[in-house]
Amino acid sequence: MSGDADLRPGEVTVDLPPATDAQLRFIGKIRTPFQTPADCPRQGDPEEGPVCRLELIPELEPALEGIERSSWLEVLYWLDRSRRDLVLQSPKRDGRTRGTFSLRSPVRPNPIGLSRVRLVRHFGTVLEVRGLDCLDGTPLLDIKPDRCDHAVRERAAHRDGDDAG
Amino acid sequence: MSGDADLRPGEVTVDLPPATDAQLRFIGKIRTPFQTPADCPRQGDPEEGPVCRLELIPELEPALEGIERSSWLEVLYWLDRSRRDLVLQSPKRDGRTRGTFSLRSPVRPNPIGLSRVRLVRHFGTVLEVRGLDCLDGTPLLDIKPDRCDHAVRERAAHRDGDDAG
Repeated sequence: MSGDADLRPGEVTVDLPPATDAQLRFIGKIRTPFQTPADCPRQGDPEEGPVCRLELIPELEPALEGIERSSWLEVLYWLDRSRRDLVLQSPKRDGRTRGTFSLRSPVRPNPIGLSRVRLVRHFGTVLEVRGLDCLDGTPLLDIKPDRCDHAVRERAAHRDGDDAG
Repeated sequence: MSGDADLRPGEVTVDLPPATDAQLRFIGKIRTPFQTPADCPRQGDPEEGPVCRLELIPELEPALEGIERSSWLEVLYWLDRSRRDLVLQSPKRDGRTRGTFSLRSPVRPNPIGLSRVRLVRHFGTVLEVRGLDCLDGTPLLDIKPDRCDHAVRERAAHRDGDDAG
Protein backbone atom coordinates (compact mmCIF):
# COMPACT_ATOMS: atom_id res chain seq x y z
CA MET A 1 0.00 0.00 0.00
CA SER A 2 3.02 2.30 0.06
CA GLY A 3 3.91 2.52 -3.61
CA ASP A 4 4.29 6.10 -4.75
CA ALA A 5 2.54 5.72 -8.10
CA ASP A 6 -0.79 6.63 -6.51
CA LEU A 7 0.39 9.87 -4.89
CA ARG A 8 -1.54 12.99 -5.95
CA PRO A 9 0.10 16.36 -6.65
CA GLY A 10 1.36 17.97 -3.44
CA GLU A 11 1.29 14.76 -1.40
CA VAL A 12 4.34 13.98 0.73
CA THR A 13 5.38 10.80 2.53
CA VAL A 14 7.82 10.42 5.40
CA ASP A 15 9.95 7.55 6.68
CA LEU A 16 8.74 6.65 10.13
CA PRO A 17 10.20 4.26 12.67
CA PRO A 18 8.60 0.79 12.59
CA ALA A 19 5.18 0.47 14.25
CA THR A 20 6.19 -1.62 17.23
CA ASP A 21 5.19 0.56 20.17
CA ALA A 22 1.97 -1.20 21.13
CA GLN A 23 -0.20 -4.00 19.84
CA LEU A 24 -3.89 -4.22 19.06
CA ARG A 25 -6.24 -7.15 19.33
CA PHE A 26 -9.22 -7.15 16.98
CA ILE A 27 -12.34 -7.62 19.12
CA GLY A 28 -14.65 -8.45 16.24
CA LYS A 29 -15.72 -7.39 12.81
CA ILE A 30 -17.95 -4.71 11.29
CA ARG A 31 -20.52 -5.73 8.70
CA THR A 32 -21.71 -2.97 6.37
CA PRO A 33 -23.27 -2.94 2.89
CA PHE A 34 -20.15 -1.14 1.56
CA GLN A 35 -18.00 -3.56 -0.46
CA THR A 36 -15.59 -1.12 -2.13
CA PRO A 37 -14.23 2.31 -1.14
CA ALA A 38 -16.46 3.84 -3.83
CA ASP A 39 -19.53 2.43 -2.01
CA CYS A 40 -18.65 4.17 1.29
CA PRO A 41 -20.44 7.43 2.07
CA ARG A 42 -18.15 10.34 3.00
CA GLN A 43 -19.66 10.37 6.47
CA GLY A 44 -22.01 7.92 8.15
CA ASP A 45 -25.57 9.05 8.83
CA PRO A 46 -26.86 7.93 12.26
CA GLU A 47 -30.45 8.81 11.33
CA GLU A 48 -30.97 7.66 7.74
CA GLY A 49 -27.91 5.46 7.11
CA PRO A 50 -28.26 1.67 6.72
CA VAL A 51 -28.30 -0.61 9.76
CA CYS A 52 -24.84 -2.16 10.15
CA ARG A 53 -23.59 -4.82 12.57
CA LEU A 54 -20.80 -4.90 15.11
CA GLU A 55 -20.02 -8.60 15.63
CA LEU A 56 -17.89 -9.28 18.70
CA ILE A 57 -15.80 -12.36 19.44
CA PRO A 58 -17.71 -14.65 21.84
CA GLU A 59 -15.29 -14.14 24.76
CA LEU A 60 -16.37 -10.49 24.97
CA GLU A 61 -20.14 -10.96 25.14
CA PRO A 62 -20.23 -10.09 28.90
CA ALA A 63 -18.49 -6.77 28.15
CA LEU A 64 -21.69 -5.61 26.39
CA GLU A 65 -23.75 -5.80 29.59
CA GLY A 66 -25.65 -2.55 30.06
CA ILE A 67 -24.85 -1.20 26.60
CA GLU A 68 -28.56 -0.50 25.90
CA ARG A 69 -28.39 2.34 28.39
CA SER A 70 -26.52 4.35 25.74
CA SER A 71 -28.41 5.33 22.63
CA TRP A 72 -25.23 6.79 21.11
CA LEU A 73 -21.90 4.98 20.89
CA GLU A 74 -18.40 5.77 19.69
CA VAL A 75 -16.96 2.97 17.56
CA LEU A 76 -13.23 2.60 16.90
CA TYR A 77 -11.97 0.40 14.09
CA TRP A 78 -8.81 -0.42 12.16
CA LEU A 79 -8.56 0.90 8.60
CA ASP A 80 -6.49 -2.04 7.50
CA ARG A 81 -6.10 -1.02 3.87
CA SER A 82 -4.63 2.42 4.56
CA ARG A 83 -1.04 3.47 3.91
CA ARG A 84 0.53 5.10 6.98
CA ASP A 85 3.29 7.31 5.64
CA LEU A 86 1.51 10.36 4.15
CA VAL A 87 2.03 13.65 5.99
CA LEU A 88 0.57 15.94 3.31
CA GLN A 89 -2.53 14.81 1.42
CA SER A 90 -4.52 16.16 -1.52
CA PRO A 91 -8.05 14.74 -1.15
CA LYS A 92 -9.67 13.76 -4.42
CA ARG A 93 -12.72 15.94 -3.89
CA ASP A 94 -10.82 19.23 -4.21
CA GLY A 95 -7.12 18.45 -4.65
CA ARG A 96 -6.10 21.04 -2.03
CA THR A 97 -3.06 19.85 -0.08
CA ARG A 98 -3.35 19.73 3.72
CA GLY A 99 -1.64 18.06 6.67
CA THR A 100 -2.86 14.58 7.61
CA PHE A 101 -3.97 15.68 11.10
CA SER A 102 -6.20 18.41 9.66
CA LEU A 103 -8.13 15.77 7.69
CA ARG A 104 -10.38 12.88 8.69
CA SER A 105 -8.91 10.77 5.88
CA PRO A 106 -8.42 7.03 6.56
CA VAL A 107 -4.74 7.50 5.64
CA ARG A 108 -2.80 8.33 8.84
CA PRO A 109 0.17 7.06 10.89
CA ASN A 110 -2.19 4.98 13.05
CA PRO A 111 -5.20 4.27 10.81
CA ILE A 112 -7.85 4.22 13.52
CA GLY A 113 -11.34 5.13 12.33
CA LEU A 114 -13.87 6.68 14.66
CA SER A 115 -17.62 7.00 14.16
CA ARG A 116 -20.46 8.16 16.34
CA VAL A 117 -23.38 5.78 15.85
CA ARG A 118 -26.90 5.25 17.09
CA LEU A 119 -27.64 1.93 18.78
CA VAL A 120 -30.60 0.16 17.18
CA ARG A 121 -30.53 -3.27 18.84
CA HIS A 122 -28.37 -5.58 20.95
CA PHE A 123 -28.58 -9.35 20.94
CA GLY A 124 -25.84 -11.75 22.06
CA THR A 125 -22.52 -10.63 20.63
CA VAL A 126 -24.12 -8.35 18.03
CA LEU A 127 -24.93 -4.64 18.05
CA GLU A 128 -27.00 -3.21 15.23
CA VAL A 129 -26.16 0.46 14.66
CA ARG A 130 -26.66 3.31 12.19
CA GLY A 131 -24.01 5.85 11.22
CA LEU A 132 -21.05 3.84 9.89
CA ASP A 133 -19.22 4.60 6.65
CA CYS A 134 -16.51 1.90 6.64
CA LEU A 135 -15.95 -1.13 4.41
CA ASP A 136 -17.60 -4.46 5.12
CA GLY A 137 -15.25 -6.66 7.16
CA THR A 138 -13.41 -3.81 8.88
CA PRO A 139 -11.76 -5.01 12.13
CA LEU A 140 -13.33 -3.65 15.31
CA LEU A 141 -11.16 -2.16 18.09
CA ASP A 142 -13.41 -0.61 20.73
CA ILE A 143 -16.92 0.54 21.64
CA LYS A 144 -17.54 3.36 24.12
CA PRO A 145 -20.72 5.09 25.30
CA ASP A 146 -20.77 8.47 23.56
CA ARG A 147 -19.24 11.06 25.83
CA CYS A 148 -22.10 13.59 25.62
CA ASP A 149 -24.82 11.02 26.01
CA HIS A 150 -22.82 9.41 28.83
CA ALA A 151 -22.27 12.67 30.73
CA VAL A 152 -25.97 13.49 30.60
CA ARG A 153 -26.95 10.04 31.79
CA GLU A 154 -24.40 10.00 34.61
CA ARG A 155 -25.57 13.40 35.83
CA ALA A 156 -29.17 12.20 35.77
CA ALA A 157 -28.22 9.04 37.71
CA HIS A 158 -26.41 11.13 40.28
CA ARG A 159 -29.40 13.47 40.64
CA ASP A 160 -31.97 10.67 40.87
CA GLY A 161 -29.80 8.48 43.09
CA ASP A 162 -30.15 5.65 40.62
CA ASP A 163 -29.06 4.72 37.17
CA ALA A 164 -32.27 4.75 35.16
CA GLY A 165 -31.38 6.80 32.08
CA MET B 1 -0.94 -5.17 35.45
CA SER B 2 -3.07 -8.30 35.33
CA GLY B 3 -2.85 -9.57 38.88
CA ASP B 4 -6.25 -10.38 40.35
CA ALA B 5 -5.60 -8.94 43.81
CA ASP B 6 -6.96 -5.55 42.73
CA LEU B 7 -10.27 -6.85 41.34
CA ARG B 8 -13.38 -5.30 42.93
CA PRO B 9 -16.53 -7.28 43.79
CA GLY B 10 -18.38 -8.34 40.64
CA GLU B 11 -15.43 -7.82 38.31
CA VAL B 12 -14.67 -10.55 35.77
CA THR B 13 -11.65 -11.13 33.55
CA VAL B 14 -11.41 -13.21 30.42
CA ASP B 15 -8.55 -14.96 28.61
CA LEU B 16 -8.12 -13.33 25.25
CA PRO B 17 -5.92 -14.32 22.32
CA PRO B 18 -2.61 -12.43 22.22
CA ALA B 19 -2.72 -8.86 20.93
CA THR B 20 -0.91 -9.36 17.65
CA ASP B 21 -3.48 -8.27 15.07
CA ALA B 22 -2.07 -4.82 14.30
CA GLN B 23 0.68 -2.56 15.54
CA LEU B 24 0.70 1.02 16.70
CA ARG B 25 3.41 3.65 16.39
CA PHE B 26 3.45 6.35 19.04
CA ILE B 27 3.45 9.71 17.22
CA GLY B 28 4.43 11.78 20.24
CA LYS B 29 3.68 12.39 23.86
CA ILE B 30 1.02 14.22 25.89
CA ARG B 31 2.14 16.61 28.62
CA THR B 32 -0.43 17.30 31.35
CA PRO B 33 -0.19 18.48 34.98
CA PHE B 34 -1.60 15.10 36.12
CA GLN B 35 1.20 12.96 37.63
CA THR B 36 -0.87 10.20 39.26
CA PRO B 37 -4.28 8.64 38.50
CA ALA B 38 -5.66 10.46 41.55
CA ASP B 39 -4.70 13.80 39.94
CA CYS B 40 -6.71 13.11 36.76
CA PRO B 41 -10.17 14.69 36.53
CA ARG B 42 -12.95 12.26 35.64
CA GLN B 43 -13.51 14.10 32.39
CA GLY B 44 -11.43 16.84 30.73
CA ASP B 45 -12.89 20.33 30.57
CA PRO B 46 -12.27 22.05 27.21
CA GLU B 47 -13.31 25.44 28.61
CA GLU B 48 -11.83 25.69 32.10
CA GLY B 49 -9.32 22.80 32.15
CA PRO B 50 -5.55 23.43 32.21
CA VAL B 51 -3.64 23.97 28.98
CA CYS B 52 -1.89 20.71 28.05
CA ARG B 53 0.58 19.97 25.25
CA LEU B 54 0.58 17.45 22.42
CA GLU B 55 4.24 17.06 21.43
CA LEU B 56 4.73 15.31 18.10
CA ILE B 57 7.85 13.58 16.81
CA PRO B 58 9.70 15.91 14.42
CA GLU B 59 9.07 13.77 11.31
CA LEU B 60 5.35 14.56 11.61
CA GLU B 61 5.50 18.36 11.81
CA PRO B 62 4.23 18.74 8.20
CA ALA B 63 1.15 16.66 9.08
CA LEU B 64 -0.06 19.56 11.28
CA GLU B 65 -0.37 21.92 8.32
CA GLY B 66 -3.78 23.60 8.39
CA ILE B 67 -4.68 22.34 11.88
CA GLU B 68 -5.56 25.88 13.04
CA ARG B 69 -8.65 25.72 10.84
CA SER B 70 -10.20 23.43 13.47
CA SER B 71 -10.97 24.90 16.86
CA TRP B 72 -11.99 21.45 18.17
CA LEU B 73 -9.93 18.28 17.83
CA GLU B 74 -10.33 14.62 18.70
CA VAL B 75 -7.21 13.23 20.37
CA LEU B 76 -6.50 9.48 20.57
CA TYR B 77 -3.90 8.13 22.99
CA TRP B 78 -2.63 4.89 24.46
CA LEU B 79 -3.53 4.14 28.08
CA ASP B 80 -0.33 2.22 28.64
CA ARG B 81 -0.93 1.39 32.30
CA SER B 82 -4.30 -0.30 31.80
CA ARG B 83 -5.01 -3.99 32.16
CA ARG B 84 -6.85 -5.37 29.11
CA ASP B 85 -8.69 -8.45 30.35
CA LEU B 86 -11.68 -7.09 32.33
CA VAL B 87 -15.10 -7.71 30.80
CA LEU B 88 -17.19 -6.72 33.84
CA GLN B 89 -16.09 -3.74 35.93
CA SER B 90 -17.25 -2.18 39.20
CA PRO B 91 -16.15 1.47 39.07
CA LYS B 92 -14.93 2.85 42.37
CA ARG B 93 -17.38 5.75 42.38
CA ASP B 94 -20.46 3.56 42.83
CA GLY B 95 -19.38 -0.10 42.78
CA ARG B 96 -22.15 -1.06 40.35
CA THR B 97 -20.96 -3.80 37.98
CA ARG B 98 -21.28 -3.12 34.26
CA GLY B 99 -19.80 -4.38 30.98
CA THR B 100 -16.56 -2.76 29.84
CA PHE B 101 -18.12 -1.39 26.62
CA SER B 102 -20.83 0.42 28.55
CA LEU B 103 -18.14 2.35 30.45
CA ARG B 104 -15.56 4.95 29.41
CA SER B 105 -13.05 3.37 31.83
CA PRO B 106 -9.39 3.28 30.71
CA VAL B 107 -9.47 -0.50 31.27
CA ARG B 108 -10.50 -2.17 27.96
CA PRO B 109 -9.23 -4.80 25.49
CA ASN B 110 -7.60 -2.05 23.40
CA PRO B 111 -6.89 0.75 25.87
CA ILE B 112 -7.32 3.67 23.49
CA GLY B 113 -8.35 6.93 25.14
CA LEU B 114 -10.33 9.53 23.26
CA SER B 115 -10.87 13.18 24.21
CA ARG B 116 -12.47 16.13 22.50
CA VAL B 117 -10.28 19.17 23.06
CA ARG B 118 -10.17 22.83 22.17
CA LEU B 119 -7.11 24.02 20.24
CA VAL B 120 -5.40 26.94 21.97
CA ARG B 121 -2.17 27.34 19.98
CA HIS B 122 0.04 25.61 17.41
CA PHE B 123 3.76 26.15 17.06
CA GLY B 124 6.21 23.76 15.40
CA THR B 125 5.51 20.21 16.56
CA VAL B 126 3.42 21.35 19.54
CA LEU B 127 -0.32 21.83 19.99
CA GLU B 128 -1.58 23.47 23.16
CA VAL B 129 -5.08 22.26 24.00
CA ARG B 130 -7.68 22.26 26.78
CA GLY B 131 -9.88 19.31 27.69
CA LEU B 132 -7.53 16.41 28.49
CA ASP B 133 -7.77 14.20 31.57
CA CYS B 134 -4.89 11.74 31.00
CA LEU B 135 -1.59 11.22 32.83
CA ASP B 136 1.49 13.23 31.99
CA GLY B 137 3.62 11.29 29.48
CA THR B 138 0.74 9.39 27.86
CA PRO B 139 1.69 8.20 24.34
CA LEU B 140 -0.13 9.97 21.51
CA LEU B 141 -1.76 7.97 18.69
CA ASP B 142 -3.75 10.33 16.47
CA ILE B 143 -5.25 13.81 16.08
CA LYS B 144 -8.37 14.44 14.00
CA PRO B 145 -10.44 17.55 13.35
CA ASP B 146 -13.60 17.14 15.40
CA ARG B 147 -16.28 15.63 13.25
CA CYS B 148 -19.00 18.22 13.95
CA ASP B 149 -16.71 21.20 13.63
CA HIS B 150 -15.26 19.63 10.47
CA ALA B 151 -18.64 18.99 8.84
CA VAL B 152 -19.72 22.58 9.42
CA ARG B 153 -16.50 23.96 7.99
CA GLU B 154 -16.57 21.72 4.94
CA ARG B 155 -20.14 22.69 4.17
CA ALA B 156 -19.23 26.37 4.48
CA ALA B 157 -16.23 25.88 2.16
CA HIS B 158 -18.44 24.14 -0.38
CA ARG B 159 -21.01 26.92 -0.23
CA ASP B 160 -18.48 29.72 -0.51
CA GLY B 161 -16.35 27.98 -3.11
CA ASP B 162 -13.33 28.33 -0.85
CA ASP B 163 -11.97 27.00 2.38
CA ALA B 164 -12.02 30.00 4.68
CA GLY B 165 -13.68 28.70 7.85
